[in-house]
Amino acid sequence: MPDKQTVIFKNAPIIVGTFTVAGPKEKKGVFGDYFHLTLDNDLFGEKTFEKAECKMMETAIARAIEDAGKKDGDIDLLLGGDLLNQTVSSSFSARKFVIPYVGVYGACSTMAEELALAACLISGGSHKTIACATGSHFSSAERQYRFPLELGNQRPPTSQWTTTGTACAILEDGTNKKGVKITSATFGKVVDFGVIDVNNMGAAMAPAAFDSLKAHLANTHTSPDDYDLILTGDLGKMGQEILIDLCERDGIKLHKNYCDCGQMLFTNKQNTFMGASGCGCSAIILNSIIYDRLKSGKYKKVLYMATGALLSLVTSQQGESIPGIAHIVCLENC
Amino acid sequence: MPDKQTVIFKNAPIIVGTFTVAGPKEKKGVFGDYFHLTLDNDLFGEKTFEKAECKMMETAIARAIEDAGKKDGDIDLLLGGDLLNQTVSSSFSARKFVIPYVGVYGACSTMAEELALAACLISGGSHKTIACATGSHFSSAERQYRFPLELGNQRPPTSQWTTTGTACAILEDGTNKKGVKITSATFGKVVDFGVIDVNNMGAAMAPAAFDSLKAHLANTHTSPDDYDLILTGDLGKMGQEILIDLCERDGIKLHKNYCDCGQMLFTNKQNTFMGASGCGCSAIILNSIIYDRLKSGKYKKVLYMATGALLSLVTSQQGESIPGIAHIVCLENC
Repeated sequence: MPDKQTVIFKNAPIIVGTFTVAGPKEKKGVFGDYFHLTLDNDLFGEKTFEKAECKMMETAIARAIEDAGKKDGDIDLLLGGDLLNQTVSSSFSARKFVIPYVGVYGACSTMAEELALAACLISGGSHKTIACATGSHFSSAERQYRFPLELGNQRPPTSQWTTTGTACAILEDGTNKKGVKITSATFGKVVDFGVIDVNNMGAAMAPAAFDSLKAHLANTHTSPDDYDLILTGDLGKMGQEILIDLCERDGIKLHKNYCDCGQMLFTNKQNTFMGASGCGCSAIILNSIIYDRLKSGKYKKVLYMATGALLSLVTSQQGESIPGIAHIVCLENC
Repeated sequence: MPDKQTVIFKNAPIIVGTFTVAGPKEKKGVFGDYFHLTLDNDLFGEKTFEKAECKMMETAIARAIEDAGKKDGDIDLLLGGDLLNQTVSSSFSARKFVIPYVGVYGACSTMAEELALAACLISGGSHKTIACATGSHFSSAERQYRFPLELGNQRPPTSQWTTTGTACAILEDGTNKKGVKITSATFGKVVDFGVIDVNNMGAAMAPAAFDSLKAHLANTHTSPDDYDLILTGDLGKMGQEILIDLCERDGIKLHKNYCDCGQMLFTNKQNTFMGASGCGCSAIILNSIIYDRLKSGKYKKVLYMATGALLSLVTSQQGESIPGIAHIVCLENC
């Protein structure tokens, strides 16, 4: 009997459509050719970065619904969340669709949180078709969380670069269908190891990632070797190393099939230090190249674990440490 | 066949415990005697209002679990959300409990959003026992959303007063049990009628409340007369009147059995103009006096609709209007 932290789906929901929108820097990065729509200007024709982020989110939702061969009216529920205060890019996007809306907040873990929730709701029978949307924007996040963009502040070597990108996935009942399904999900606990450096999110999130990964492997009686790919996002270079280390001490060996989205998104020449971060980071990688490879059968089984740092500007200013969380979904072509 | 916006539960989940913590002004208000714990000082022994809000949330969660006769390990999932940027009072509270955590954001609609989600998850079988927590704090909200407290700024006559209060409800599988159950839920759509006055949230939220109420009544084939109480929160005096008006034009008559938590929480002498607001407002009323009256059988059937204004400081500064949302759960003693 699996521990209640992990839900194993007897009738695993299927992903029937995805769409990703990525910014100019992401376009020039490692996966530039895989995103569905890439922008040459991160204002996307809008007057502010916040409005641009919102338009990117709307585009991802509308085009994912299209990709699934559906219309707004076919979607029972829209799950949305993002990094902006009061998750406004999600809720302002939602007003463009006549779809019931549930706002979530999981910082950079949002896509996994939404997929896990949606899978439970569909598998449980309360909803048939759910859209999961999230994203982030470098310029809106930077000026909200760190410094005015005009300041041109130096970035410390442990920092990560917020991804400009949005993604949406459409899930539905997978009974008697073949395709990319969510076969299990683990909801993470909030884990706080006392890291207080807001420029080292990887270190703050790695213990949460370890906690959820260990639980998921134990509850599903699997080992890292059972997956074609274990994908975390967005621990970055340092967080990834800490996770590998924490796992090794516990007898869990993360080998070559382990990758982190934060570490992978940008090339070394793009000067992002520890790599990428933001809700959009793992969301645009998962919903483009990873989904494609799962659909084509190149991957059979992928463990997707998105990590979030649950701080705010005020908590840091008040001397609080940074709690982390990691949610997991297992994606299988079956 | 009900519209998919409304979920009707065949195996309705049951509320097995609640706890509410309320501030000094709320203690002197209309329901002061009904709250489980009231504070004489809104700092609650902490150094900042944010830390106080967090401690109030932790207290509500811990004591609700106790009230349900359970331990942390009996809770499968904690749903939390609040008004602070990055919903930090919820996620920082969650680190004190070894319970998987899902953060949500629905502004002042959070308690209804959580109860609706939890009911779907429990009824669907993915989770057995879920804690739903939310809250707000006047002083942390005021300085985040409006003005520094020290400024002593004048409040416009259409403004509402953010509630200092937190609440938690514990839900579990209701099969073969008698008590207060969630028998149906309607997830709201984001509705924006173009209101831009951030000091008139009631007007911004009323159209969303009308939209959800109309859908819920139609989908459940009920009329307002079928309920002992229809409880909105927190439209305030003006929002309440707008809702009554919108309903009347559509042939839905809201009579004496309709109340708004925002309008009710404080006495007229407490100078809160349009009344109370904040995630805590309807959450502390629902989880104290309303739950007690449902449990005792004084009420048989209550429709609880919490409303949220999905704005941020930045969206208002950028000239955006205020989108609203309203989620509904029907509570029955059965």
